[in-house]
Amino acid sequence: MRVVNTIADMTRLRAAFGAETLGFVPTMGYLHAGHLSLVRQSVAENKCSVVSIFVNPMQFGPSEDLERYPRDLERDFSLLKPLGLDIVFVPDVGEIYPPAAQHGTTVTVYGPTERLEGAMRPGHFTGVATVVAKLFNIVRPTRAYFGQKDAQQVAVISKMVSDLNFPLDVIACPTLRESDGLAMSSRNVFLTPGDRATAKFISGGLFAAEALWQAGERDAAVLESVVRESLRRGNFVNIDYVAVVDPLTFDPYTPGSTAALIAVAARVGTTRLIDNILLSCVSRL
Amino acid sequence: MRVVNTIADMTRLRAAFGAETLGFVPTMGYLHAGHLSLVRQSVAENKCSVVSIFVNPMQFGPSEDLERYPRDLERDFSLLKPLGLDIVFVPDVGEIYPPAAQHGTTVTVYGPTERLEGAMRPGHFTGVATVVAKLFNIVRPTRAYFGQKDAQQVAVISKMVSDLNFPLDVIACPTLRESDGLAMSSRNVFLTPGDRATAKFISGGLFAAEALWQAGERDAAVLESVVRESLRRGNFVNIDYVAVVDPLTFDPYTPGSTAALIAVAARVGTTRLIDNILLSCVSRL
Repeated sequence: MRVVNTIADMTRLRAAFGAETLGFVPTMGYLHAGHLSLVRQSVAENKCSVVSIFVNPMQFGPSEDLERYPRDLERDFSLLKPLGLDIVFVPDVGEIYPPAAQHGTTVTVYGPTERLEGAMRPGHFTGVATVVAKLFNIVRPTRAYFGQKDAQQVAVISKMVSDLNFPLDVIACPTLRESDGLAMSSRNVFLTPGDRATAKFISGGLFAAEALWQAGERDAAVLESVVRESLRRGNFVNIDYVAVVDPLTFDPYTPGSTAALIAVAARVGTTRLIDNILLSCVSRL
Repeated sequence: MRVVNTIADMTRLRAAFGAETLGFVPTMGYLHAGHLSLVRQSVAENKCSVVSIFVNPMQFGPSEDLERYPRDLERDFSLLKPLGLDIVFVPDVGEIYPPAAQHGTTVTVYGPTERLEGAMRPGHFTGVATVVAKLFNIVRPTRAYFGQKDAQQVAVISKMVSDLNFPLDVIACPTLRESDGLAMSSRNVFLTPGDRATAKFISGGLFAAEALWQAGERDAAVLESVVRESLRRGNFVNIDYVAVVDPLTFDPYTPGSTAALIAVAARVGTTRLIDNILLSCVSRL
């Protein structure tokens, strides 16, 4: 496993891989088991694998948690080392956004960016799409792996790849969860023990909605109210949204359409958490 | 020379070229000697060469000349055939902008897009950058060739390539001119004989400004007034701009900076023409 810090080195090593399949897992570091599952899948499916670690300032709003976002490169390296990947690409901010690129070029995805996270975090998805476009051009993967936990990000990147004809496949991988159901996230480190006990009401609500869905419920308002009820039991004060949407367009779910996703964003203590569950289109009824 | 109409075929043929150098000349067709000089340079410098012909609706404003833009594919093919290139990629609009991509993803370049053509044609450079990003991802060139006649486009594409880390070189090639100095352009076909006689006052003004520059003049207002004087002699009514700018940023020229470009846009009859001259930073004095 080679640690690479510059675009020039990354480009040179990429060229040496030639036409072999290359799997790419872009991350912001502070890795957890969810990230590691993406890396394992990439290593299993591709001849070479690259993980990037870059906390992208462009996707954080001015009042968001860029400064306190957790970072621990040595820990990340020791977690990655046993997995058999080829390269960890760890550029610094000046490498990705040199002065000339700061009033630079942006990639903006329309459609799935407009609701939920897009509405709550103006500019967030333009920051995500721009840095991922840059990383795709630097790493030139055959396949890129993203966690379904960030479902809207998956939809946005998939749309960007399709709209801009990037020659690669986007692979969404299942959310990994703690034993009580909490979706794994680097931000979970901020949760106090009290927050931690509260946080499980998010996934608890999603599981309850999923059970209702599997029992045949298709009314979005009913499914959403089950999640809100769970959040109320957890004494959540700040709920950004609870919504049943189309998993590709993030438009509101319309009964009869073939796929749905129920998504939540809420604040526990000082930490904003998101989670979602894909609702199978095959009902058990 | 193979004519390819679909992205799928282009992608397959591109993969077969492998790691060889690939030169790419994106055009809107109705080729003239300027285009052909780009193709010749590409063929000379690369193992394989691809020309695209695509009149990109996204870069035309609602009141612009998309509908009447000249098209003659058979003529284009016969001009290209003797040049020894490998592929002419001729997608239709539905191939480049399928319904799913119509409220899609845009690439926006800041900086050099904001003045001159960018100010006169809102959205134009986002349309150019987006389609060129798509074509770069489909064709994956080593080198891409653009005519210096569209100087601001060269600056915009160069900045996009740098900002988004596209793994290719942008090569700007000299403007070719008719014997009276008129810059070659597909739109010259619209000029009536009267327009044609008038049009030469554009390049005439630029050459006069260049001569002054070479004699040591560095006052942008003086250089611009020489061009305006020539346009007045040609009885130009609609002058969009005459400006001395930095050739990379398109900010106004500041005396002492190492490079300058003098650019003109003006209307002759129903046709809008642009032209420019790069002013050497080495004075003859």
